[in-house]
Amino acid sequence: MDLRKRCKQLASMLAPNKLDALVVTSAPNVRYLSGFTGDNGALLVSAGSTTLFTDPRYEIQAAGETGCKVIVARGPLLERLMAEARRKRLRRLGFERDRISYREFQTLDENRAPGARLDPVVGAVEQLRCLKDPGEVALIRHSMQIAVRAFEQAAGCVRSGMTEADLAAELDHRMRTGGAEASSFETIVAAGRRSALPHARPSRAPIKEGQLVLIDMGALADGYASDMTRMLHLGEPSRKVRQMYAAVLEAQMAAIEAVRPGVPAATVDRVARRTLRRYGFDRLFVHSTGHGVGLEIHEGPRLGRTSQDTLETGMVVTIEPGVYLAGFGGIRIEDTVVVTSNGAEVLTQLSKQLRIL
Amino acid sequence: MDLRKRCKQLASMLAPNKLDALVVTSAPNVRYLSGFTGDNGALLVSAGSTTLFTDPRYEIQAAGETGCKVIVARGPLLERLMAEARRKRLRRLGFERDRISYREFQTLDENRAPGARLDPVVGAVEQLRCLKDPGEVALIRHSMQIAVRAFEQAAGCVRSGMTEADLAAELDHRMRTGGAEASSFETIVAAGRRSALPHARPSRAPIKEGQLVLIDMGALADGYASDMTRMLHLGEPSRKVRQMYAAVLEAQMAAIEAVRPGVPAATVDRVARRTLRRYGFDRLFVHSTGHGVGLEIHEGPRLGRTSQDTLETGMVVTIEPGVYLAGFGGIRIEDTVVVTSNGAEVLTQLSKQLRIL
Repeated sequence: MDLRKRCKQLASMLAPNKLDALVVTSAPNVRYLSGFTGDNGALLVSAGSTTLFTDPRYEIQAAGETGCKVIVARGPLLERLMAEARRKRLRRLGFERDRISYREFQTLDENRAPGARLDPVVGAVEQLRCLKDPGEVALIRHSMQIAVRAFEQAAGCVRSGMTEADLAAELDHRMRTGGAEASSFETIVAAGRRSALPHARPSRAPIKEGQLVLIDMGALADGYASDMTRMLHLGEPSRKVRQMYAAVLEAQMAAIEAVRPGVPAATVDRVARRTLRRYGFDRLFVHSTGHGVGLEIHEGPRLGRTSQDTLETGMVVTIEPGVYLAGFGGIRIEDTVVVTSNGAEVLTQLSKQLRIL
Repeated sequence: MDLRKRCKQLASMLAPNKLDALVVTSAPNVRYLSGFTGDNGALLVSAGSTTLFTDPRYEIQAAGETGCKVIVARGPLLERLMAEARRKRLRRLGFERDRISYREFQTLDENRAPGARLDPVVGAVEQLRCLKDPGEVALIRHSMQIAVRAFEQAAGCVRSGMTEADLAAELDHRMRTGGAEASSFETIVAAGRRSALPHARPSRAPIKEGQLVLIDMGALADGYASDMTRMLHLGEPSRKVRQMYAAVLEAQMAAIEAVRPGVPAATVDRVARRTLRRYGFDRLFVHSTGHGVGLEIHEGPRLGRTSQDTLETGMVVTIEPGVYLAGFGGIRIEDTVVVTSNGAEVLTQLSKQLRIL
């Protein structure tokens, strides 16, 4: 991962936007550009250089992790950063509008040189992050492998009577002992009717014979996230469940086949919806088809109806259509895939058959 | 827990601060005042009423959790909230300066009535939250019991060769299966020299014979956090370790004995430092003696050198002096305690002896 190249790419966007420098305050963006993984860091990126500001607790760590110039601030980071901006006579400063806190903005504002400007910038680093380099793809692949292994181990332990919360704890523990720092989001285990709630939190309700179980999970390993959803069924599924499952599976596979560089992200979403419509299920698909995955579990591009994004080689996205029937249950199937030069490579190496226990 | 009383207390602070209403955007503050546990909520608190704004995903949940009036916004929450403020002719609005994002502030600012004012407010809800009612103390006690039980179970499994990360995963898993939603912060397991880093993250380094192991952990259960630190030693500790341990234990117990309503928080910190000075260790105690614990793992009051807070009955705080010797190791002992009418009750019901394995 060439951090210097990332900073240069970002710096090349400054002049066209009439900026001398960008102040980067969001932790994943700081990590992406500098390699620094500590909790308290900020970057000043100008055409000539990138400087990382952190506090004394992180002095040794910062020196080991980043190739940037490091300034260890004794007082508030952003005050020190603005002093450096004044010293370098950087007068047109961009800040991350959607990532900065009101308090941080105030500090920038109170410490700018007389006549210096602060301009809101939206999504500059996030745009670079959409395209993963091979090192990043390898990390996401590894993160996905950890999640898949944990799923396979835990699925073998599922018994009628086990609670949703206990199964979620088991999945999380398997990911941790399998090499993850953490789960990439709060693991969803939703059984029976609760599977119809797209963002159900695991409850203390026991999983019962005859129920569908939706499991949406992912690992965070070396800072990179993965994301997958699979379905279990305790006992023989009804015909209705089988029909719903077959429709979602077809929609998911059709959407993956539509993935290719140059294709609008909205087209992939449309393919999934069109397939579900043939079964009369399109109105039960209440969310988007997918999203980018990387240092954050939700990042660009968006694969939804109104997305303006176009797929490019190196993007890593989820493909996750679902149908949710209130009072009955829901089905979602989700893979994380990487956009390749001629299509998509599925990173979630795991059977997509409904798993009957 | 009397949510109505909390809202009234907050509302009584409005007029003296020349405010008609306060906009509450921080999730723990929204939960504290309304009982709502969803991810997307905001409150408009005026003298006469408290209104919760959320989105359609949380409609049913909000109705079940809160006694407040609920408005389900179809578009952006804060736009809807400001429309309501305009309708009610609330013209002097406070916002949570240290909790709001720049973007949220912008939305408030763009949607205020002509001539209406936005005033920064600092720590209003946080001040109320310092004092726990008996229901909250019961939840923190329960959260602490979960952590203590997990510690006892996992401490029995520690063997030379186990990695810090594996022990942390084991502790987290025991808390989850013991009834916690999550750990209240990233569990610290630091062995040998790494125990001298007060905020070490668990590494893949194996724990070895002859090493000190610092374990700092807490559960999150029903939204409430707990916090404790205990030390293990693999094999017979050296005389130096025993001396350091004895000094920290004495300092920790002396600090707990100093806890009483009416005592300045800075005094408790001073008692811990004075005790360590007798052993020549005061310069190795590089952080504060403690902090409040509740809906967040770090809240008021602060128990440090420069704290202006005074202890009151019903506050729940940590007492956690430590000494850290770079290149050798560190020792910290931490309990969560509640300030009672005549002293302190220790919620961390667990031996403070150095546990030798």
